[in-house]
Amino acid sequence: MARPPIAMIKLIEYAEASAEVRAVYDDIMATRKTDRVNNFWKALASHPATLRRTWQSVKEVMAPGALDPLTKELLYVAVSATNGCDYCIASHTASARQKGMTDEMLGELMAVVGMANETNRLADGYQVEIDETFRTPSA
Amino acid sequence: MARPPIAMIKLIEYAEASAEVRAVYDDIMATRKTDRVNNFWKALASHPATLRRTWQSVKEVMAPGALDPLTKELLYVAVSATNGCDYCIASHTASARQKGMTDEMLGELMAVVGMANETNRLADGYQVEIDETFRTPSA
Amino acid sequence: MARPPIAMIKLIEYAEASAEVRAVYDDIMATRKTDRVNNFWKALASHPATLRRTWQSVKEVMAPGALDPLTKELLYVAVSATNGCDYCIASHTASARQKGMTDEMLGELMAVVGMANETNRLADGYQVEIDETFRTPSA
Amino acid sequence: MARPPIAMIKLIEYAEASAEVRAVYDDIMATRKTDRVNNFWKALASHPATLRRTWQSVKEVMAPGALDPLTKELLYVAVSATNGCDYCIASHTASARQKGMTDEMLGELMAVVGMANETNRLADGYQVEIDETFRTPSA
Amino acid sequence: MARPPIAMIKLIEYAEASAEVRAVYDDIMATRKTDRVNNFWKALASHPATLRRTWQSVKEVMAPGALDPLTKELLYVAVSATNGCDYCIASHTASARQKGMTDEMLGELMAVVGMANETNRLADGYQVEIDETFRTPSA
Amino acid sequence: MARPPIAMIKLIEYAEASAEVRAVYDDIMATRKTDRVNNFWKALASHPATLRRTWQSVKEVMAPGALDPLTKELLYVAVSATNGCDYCIASHTASARQKGMTDEMLGELMAVVGMANETNRLADGYQVEIDETFRTPSA
Repeated sequence: MARPPIAMIKLIEYAEASAEVRAVYDDIMATRKTDRVNNFWKALASHPATLRRTWQSVKEVMAPGALDPLTKELLYVAVSATNGCDYCIASHTASARQKGMTDEMLGELMAVVGMANETNRLADGYQVEIDETFRTPSA
Repeated sequence: MARPPIAMIKLIEYAEASAEVRAVYDDIMATRKTDRVNNFWKALASHPATLRRTWQSVKEVMAPGALDPLTKELLYVAVSATNGCDYCIASHTASARQKGMTDEMLGELMAVVGMANETNRLADGYQVEIDETFRTPSA
Repeated sequence: MARPPIAMIKLIEYAEASAEVRAVYDDIMATRKTDRVNNFWKALASHPATLRRTWQSVKEVMAPGALDPLTKELLYVAVSATNGCDYCIASHTASARQKGMTDEMLGELMAVVGMANETNRLADGYQVEIDETFRTPSA
Repeated sequence: MARPPIAMIKLIEYAEASAEVRAVYDDIMATRKTDRVNNFWKALASHPATLRRTWQSVKEVMAPGALDPLTKELLYVAVSATNGCDYCIASHTASARQKGMTDEMLGELMAVVGMANETNRLADGYQVEIDETFRTPSA
Repeated sequence: MARPPIAMIKLIEYAEASAEVRAVYDDIMATRKTDRVNNFWKALASHPATLRRTWQSVKEVMAPGALDPLTKELLYVAVSATNGCDYCIASHTASARQKGMTDEMLGELMAVVGMANETNRLADGYQVEIDETFRTPSA
Repeated sequence: MARPPIAMIKLIEYAEASAEVRAVYDDIMATRKTDRVNNFWKALASHPATLRRTWQSVKEVMAPGALDPLTKELLYVAVSATNGCDYCIASHTASARQKGMTDEMLGELMAVVGMANETNRLADGYQVEIDETFRTPSA
């Protein structure tokens, strides 16, 4: 027998959503050029202020700038893998593929994430003193 | 009175290093086109097998491939900031700047890292079920 | 076909438990005014000393004091969401609801947890120096 | 010899700040009824969009609501201690004291944070299956 | 209805593997005296360089040395439980049992892991200053 | 100018401690056959119930059992390095040395901790499905 999903709160579907929530859903679908809203946003909709604020922040942060959108998605996957967040790994790996990430790029991304996690623990474990040369802020 | 640095092990300077350790130091300096070796490697030198293996892995992983070296450094900084590893944040931010990271790029990098850490906890905290559409592996 | 649960050890049911384990189960049920014991305790029962010690600590720590029991449960959920511990998020969110947490309170809790995880990484990522004003211990 | 502070970026003081940054600083000081701005915000000011967005979010999230401001600060400290973010522990412990946290409350807070981190690892380490009773979302 | 497994990439079975991947699989099976390869390696095989490098490192690191193989597996489980990595907890607990870990040893291991996670957060949360006596590196 | 130490609370010295706190200090010194008490315990003494409970737990958990005291200290260091807790790394590395850990053993310990953190992220990042063979609890 398959188990019912674990859920802390009820997902809010478009049909039952308030006007405030629908406005965010509409903006998500328009911005992402899609006709569906991920479960993440349907979960946040249980607290409309968090839905609105989080979407506005993600939309602003992930927009093209000094870093291109694909690089930003790769960074998102790297953080999510480091935190072990299953949902975030799944959803942002999918987003990164849509933006052009190949299997070879994913392989190299994971190799860097793995190495960084290894050397982070070695640097902490040996309590390595920071080199003087790294102590100068940029001009 | 300034405190002595905390250190789990003694840093191994070039002058006192074994031939095995010097060979790795020489390769680090040649590969990175520099005449100094960071404290991280001087700490690992207390266990030469770990020094050799870790350097070989880092050298291979950070070489240009499907992802360019700057993107790899940005990923390294993102993981290190997520883990809160002071040494790694300091050293890899310096490396990223050497490879072309501007203040604007660092600002956007940190914005993505911050957002990813926020939404990782929201996704975990609400135990959001993974959308069926994310469950299909790539062909 | 549904998968069998993953388990590192066998859950110990009351009927098969030793007198030492039953005594802890009895105290759990009496303290919590319930007739069931959660899987967490049935797992710890594989090592009775850990079951006894952990229950005694949780019982003492979660008792009313300078902080009320609901506030303590909210803190437990905040830590569990930050660590991404699915079991703990599920069980302590349920406990918090029993003690009066509303959906609105859960929404604000998660908003704080998310923001704290975001700013934690920004403070670490930028290696922000601690203000002198924060360095004085309480009198 | 005392070491210079490590810093990834230069702190932006009010006198040298742009009008955009000053507007945020002014709002921080007005909202918090203080005449100083913490180093955290002076660091974020290196990327004005992140300064503005983060302050707006923190201001909104930490405002009184279903949870009172002190409870929100306690949650912030709990997350920061779990992440081991020195800056955030120092600054939010100070904020919590200003909002009424006593030594006894801090003692109980840390006791809960410690226990939650212990039982999180026990639940994960034993891969405890989530009880059916925790799988039902709220109505 | 049971859900399909989540997977970021396709597992590479022996029959469809390249000669390069088969050589690693053969070495894994020979070294471990088994006729099967775990899903972890079949996932890494999507990026053969990472498969080869990671296996070589794990093989070298887990070989008997100043620490015996069982102690090394216990350390692996301790790290995996602390990170909450389900796959790693499951696979390394199984490996530890094969190398002689009893239920009593697992119980004590988890007790230490739990306590260490608790006291780690207390030390960080109270920002305890490191005793001068701990600041001296080994000779 | 050297900075004053950061501290959330005042360390309680023996001379100023209450009888309750002194009793714990006396037991720590007797159990560890030393005439000093580490800063960690002096910090916990700000909340005597936490001091007493934590010491009782650590004393019980770290006592010889199915695992010897040195192995337990190695596990403590592994967890502390994974969490990046500076105080805990420093104090438990010192304890492990007192119990017989050599530089070679520390080197192998760190190598395992590094590899485990690397493969933990690879397993999570690729969302590797747990092998059926790992799903059976011990009899």
